[in-house]
Amino acid sequence: MGDPNGIGPEILARCLVDEDVLRRVDLIPVGAPAVLAHYIGQDNALSGAGDRVPAYQIEAVEADPEFQLAPGRADSRAGKLAMDSVARAITLCLEGRVDAMTTCPISKEVIARAGFDVPGHTEFIAEKTASPDVLMMMVSGNLRVGLVTAHLPLRDVPSHISEERVARAIRLMAASLRSDFDMERPRIAVLGLNPHAGDGGVLGSEEGAIIVPTMKRLTHVAELSGPYPADGFFGSGGWKRVDGVVAMYHDQGLGPFKALSFGKGVNFSAGLPIVRTSPDHGTGFDIAGTGRADAASLKAALLLAADIAERRKGRPG
Amino acid sequence: MGDPNGIGPEILARCLVDEDVLRRVDLIPVGAPAVLAHYIGQDNALSGAGDRVPAYQIEAVEADPEFQLAPGRADSRAGKLAMDSVARAITLCLEGRVDAMTTCPISKEVIARAGFDVPGHTEFIAEKTASPDVLMMMVSGNLRVGLVTAHLPLRDVPSHISEERVARAIRLMAASLRSDFDMERPRIAVLGLNPHAGDGGVLGSEEGAIIVPTMKRLTHVAELSGPYPADGFFGSGGWKRVDGVVAMYHDQGLGPFKALSFGKGVNFSAGLPIVRTSPDHGTGFDIAGTGRADAASLKAALLLAADIAERRKGRPG
Repeated sequence: MGDPNGIGPEILARCLVDEDVLRRVDLIPVGAPAVLAHYIGQDNALSGAGDRVPAYQIEAVEADPEFQLAPGRADSRAGKLAMDSVARAITLCLEGRVDAMTTCPISKEVIARAGFDVPGHTEFIAEKTASPDVLMMMVSGNLRVGLVTAHLPLRDVPSHISEERVARAIRLMAASLRSDFDMERPRIAVLGLNPHAGDGGVLGSEEGAIIVPTMKRLTHVAELSGPYPADGFFGSGGWKRVDGVVAMYHDQGLGPFKALSFGKGVNFSAGLPIVRTSPDHGTGFDIAGTGRADAASLKAALLLAADIAERRKGRPG
Repeated sequence: MGDPNGIGPEILARCLVDEDVLRRVDLIPVGAPAVLAHYIGQDNALSGAGDRVPAYQIEAVEADPEFQLAPGRADSRAGKLAMDSVARAITLCLEGRVDAMTTCPISKEVIARAGFDVPGHTEFIAEKTASPDVLMMMVSGNLRVGLVTAHLPLRDVPSHISEERVARAIRLMAASLRSDFDMERPRIAVLGLNPHAGDGGVLGSEEGAIIVPTMKRLTHVAELSGPYPADGFFGSGGWKRVDGVVAMYHDQGLGPFKALSFGKGVNFSAGLPIVRTSPDHGTGFDIAGTGRADAASLKAALLLAADIAERRKGRPG
């Protein structure tokens, strides 16, 4: 459900009556029933849905007795409810009672106030599932972008580009493309760190010193190409000739990704023992409760989770 | 004409018979007539153009007697011919014999071999026109992106983000939107340096320490907004609500720009006394001479140069 005061419950309510979702997914909302009921009651599309609404079962998580729904408000009780819901979903996954989980947005600031000392969902889930290696991968159709570094000040990015980190991202992406996207011999493009991928060393040395040597060590892992200049790689359609793209930092990968995915991007956490996706947007506190939230990214996240769960199940062991 | 061994003369030849170009521009090719004749002779579209080909006049630049056309070859004689052609075009502009110039791609490596110690066209033209302040602005329809820093290793970007440089970029963009794009009160969006525009300081301090104070000083210059998180700004269509976007570094601005401009982006040098545009791609040595080059970006560059020249002429002073 995400932060109950964000757009999460609203877009979740929309997906509960979305025909594409109903056809592919047995959706079990996890959260406070009263919050969800509020949005189901308010939304005209939902009220009018009549008997098309399936007999879904809410996995109820108890809210603090003093919690009151207040769209747009940063409230530590809301943060606690959101994180308790995430914890419940993780348990459902680990116990095999569900095949995948999709998380709606939370606010880092709000969960911190609620006493959760983690940067976000991904780190929380990694900890609860004892998974040291997770790759943040953005997915939209055949465009898949993984990040070597993610939530770091730009100033700290170059010093974090190491052979170890680049290799880890490539390995995690290759493994996920095999197990989650059914690609036997994945083709992975690697972007340079610097403009023009360093232009032969004139605009930076990390390509020659770190990225290229790492790629040479990993030719058995995937069909690797690059390092490519990041600016032209997406616009020229270079991404269409590969199965995945490894970007060096947040805005380098996500700027073009979001420009190309038109609000339907999905964040997938590759490397976890459980299947977890999420929409690629935030809590939307500024529009929560106004009925203006777009459920497209959550819908895509639910469908991708279903696809990946099916592919993992279809594989032996 | 650009580097004669690149795709420049080929795409220029295509534009010479493009009806949209013919309608708007009196095109004067600047370069070696033999090189251009080679492409006009080879191209079927051009051979078949018959009497639609206008009586254009070539501004002939003499090649080294030993220069031989060899598509794809990095040749210092080609570099000299290209730069002599650029110098001639600058002269034509400064003498008022033409209204604008559009440059085809050159190779930094090749011109260096030819003894030209400048990073590229822009710096060369800035020097020849005694223009200390130039802003690299990418234009595609109503999407206009200017860069505070451009050809720098990523490692050096944060230390180059200063109040002075950010202010210069904003001022140059505001002045250009007024004089070149006829906007009386330009709306300019400013991007953050860090992921999530620093997330309130958690992911970097330059937004609060440098960018925001600079913007506050410049509220009289333009209607400023931001600093915005760069990754979502383009995908969410935020750029449609402003007239220009100031990005902090190369890949942050150009990655999304190229993803959205579909090969029709134009590089415009704002702040020069003359009008100068160029296509947003390189020499294409790998496909030069094969007939596969796409003239769309050059065509857009020619049409934009014509638009801007007309707007500047239409203004008093």
